[in-house]
Amino acid sequence: MSDNRLKVVFLGPLASFSHQAAAESFKKTNAELIPHASFGDAFSAVQDQTADFAVIPFENSTNGSVVQTLDLLADRTSLYTDVQVCGEYYLTVHHCLLVRKGTYPSGCSGYDGSITKLYTHPQAWGQCEGLLSAHFKGVERQDVSSTSKAAEIVAKETGESSAAIASKFAAEYHGLDILKENIEDRADNTTRFLILRNTRVEKTAELAFEQRCSSCTTWIMNKTLISFAVAHSSAGALANALLIFKAHGLNLTSINTRPSLKRAWQYVFFVECGQAPSAENKEAVLEALSDLHHATESCRNWGTWKDQLCSGADS
Amino acid sequence: MSDNRLKVVFLGPLASFSHQAAAESFKKTNAELIPHASFGDAFSAVQDQTADFAVIPFENSTNGSVVQTLDLLADRTSLYTDVQVCGEYYLTVHHCLLVRKGTYPSGCSGYDGSITKLYTHPQAWGQCEGLLSAHFKGVERQDVSSTSKAAEIVAKETGESSAAIASKFAAEYHGLDILKENIEDRADNTTRFLILRNTRVEKTAELAFEQRCSSCTTWIMNKTLISFAVAHSSAGALANALLIFKAHGLNLTSINTRPSLKRAWQYVFFVECGQAPSAENKEAVLEALSDLHHATESCRNWGTWKDQLCSGADS
Repeated sequence: MSDNRLKVVFLGPLASFSHQAAAESFKKTNAELIPHASFGDAFSAVQDQTADFAVIPFENSTNGSVVQTLDLLADRTSLYTDVQVCGEYYLTVHHCLLVRKGTYPSGCSGYDGSITKLYTHPQAWGQCEGLLSAHFKGVERQDVSSTSKAAEIVAKETGESSAAIASKFAAEYHGLDILKENIEDRADNTTRFLILRNTRVEKTAELAFEQRCSSCTTWIMNKTLISFAVAHSSAGALANALLIFKAHGLNLTSINTRPSLKRAWQYVFFVECGQAPSAENKEAVLEALSDLHHATESCRNWGTWKDQLCSGADS
Repeated sequence: MSDNRLKVVFLGPLASFSHQAAAESFKKTNAELIPHASFGDAFSAVQDQTADFAVIPFENSTNGSVVQTLDLLADRTSLYTDVQVCGEYYLTVHHCLLVRKGTYPSGCSGYDGSITKLYTHPQAWGQCEGLLSAHFKGVERQDVSSTSKAAEIVAKETGESSAAIASKFAAEYHGLDILKENIEDRADNTTRFLILRNTRVEKTAELAFEQRCSSCTTWIMNKTLISFAVAHSSAGALANALLIFKAHGLNLTSINTRPSLKRAWQYVFFVECGQAPSAENKEAVLEALSDLHHATESCRNWGTWKDQLCSGADS
């Protein structure tokens, strides 16, 4: 039963935030969305061409970088040589208080304080402290492996009067009622996902997922991710490598590091840089890479994509 | 019962790797070593002057930066304005297989395969996979919150025939026999600790803990930690800030970032830089800071200390 639909893998379980990011970023396509249990599996699926794209969390505006993704991008044993970053997607993390269908037909206004147990991922408790301390003091809290799992448990319960903290997406997927939306303390908690493709697969070069932010009409920046390693013992090597970006007009937007694991206290650096797309600086990334090859022990171009953090999304 | 001994706090529990690092780095002193349950508590103890020094894990050669420490160094609400980094200590992580005293009087050569249960911290299983797969296939594994806790459990058991994976330091502390030493797969797994003091406490300026590596006679480098934030929207701001280090002869040895939490996708950068101590470049750090104050939104000098990763320890 093969079909021509795009295959997009995301980090499971079903109805996870990664699932939501994959669904939203590929909404214009008829893509088949496939859960994978681990970050490594998702990278492998793209490398092995069993999937066309992967949607992978890269950083969260509150918690910072996703170390598992950086470790795969370090690609210390050259497992993912054909994998490339071709896009990004920003997902704002909204939590809802979810209950079994029909429990509170009139929504939160009819809530009578009868909920005796709450389920969610450990991180979500701290993100919804305002609502929890105001209305759910003393109510039993049960940690589960994901917010989606919390929704699934509540959907399947029959006797208990429990609720889950999870996304609207998980509510729809597991068929729960939303007692209250947007219960998170911080409205701006956002996760950035990278979209991966295989450079050898022609049909994915089209970037069927791309969408332009409706509030942006003028400025669109290109972003590029480059990883490199420098000799620790060589004084000034890191500064010299970073200078190369500036010399070619590439604006550094983020730097991350991970241990090289070749030798203690040596690092793989991940630099993201941006520039406006123009005829003039079309070759800037390639020229910078050529210089980096001379100034570093190793370096790799992970690809260039359209910055989705436009002025519209940023404000 | 007050005394004049130095008070050194570390990240508990007792017999943890932090405890070991504190004991080894302050071995020449008669310091009182005090466990603290959280990273924040240890920082607060130094700020509040209830402790003279704190010994805090900063990075591991395999796992990378310790995010909790970076978040405290980001000091987003100015809680730790008097805290300064005054030293570092490298602790190589060695694991041992520990059993109750007298169980195997002849050590590993007398081991008869009777151990039915193993205890350790989840991370340690992966670090000792070689020994475990060779000799302990199918033996029940119980995760506990620390390797020290594992040693404590085994020390207290009476009926069971169990073993713990923990340090020699924990074996001595909890009174266990070492069945086998250095059972880790990687010999070079090392954690770097920072030593903190309060700039207002005169008596800690002496750095009673300092010790020179016996294999180093010539080169000693000074290291400095500086944190700063730059305006995300300002093109080239990060590169310009990094250039300042180079301009003053300060060699960048590491860069870390954490979210600023003031605005999404803005970061606090942590830059470590080194230079040989000499009359000529005595003012380099202060001059660089003066320039950084103009080039960044905010910056902070976390202090300068003697690099302990000498050529002796590095090779």
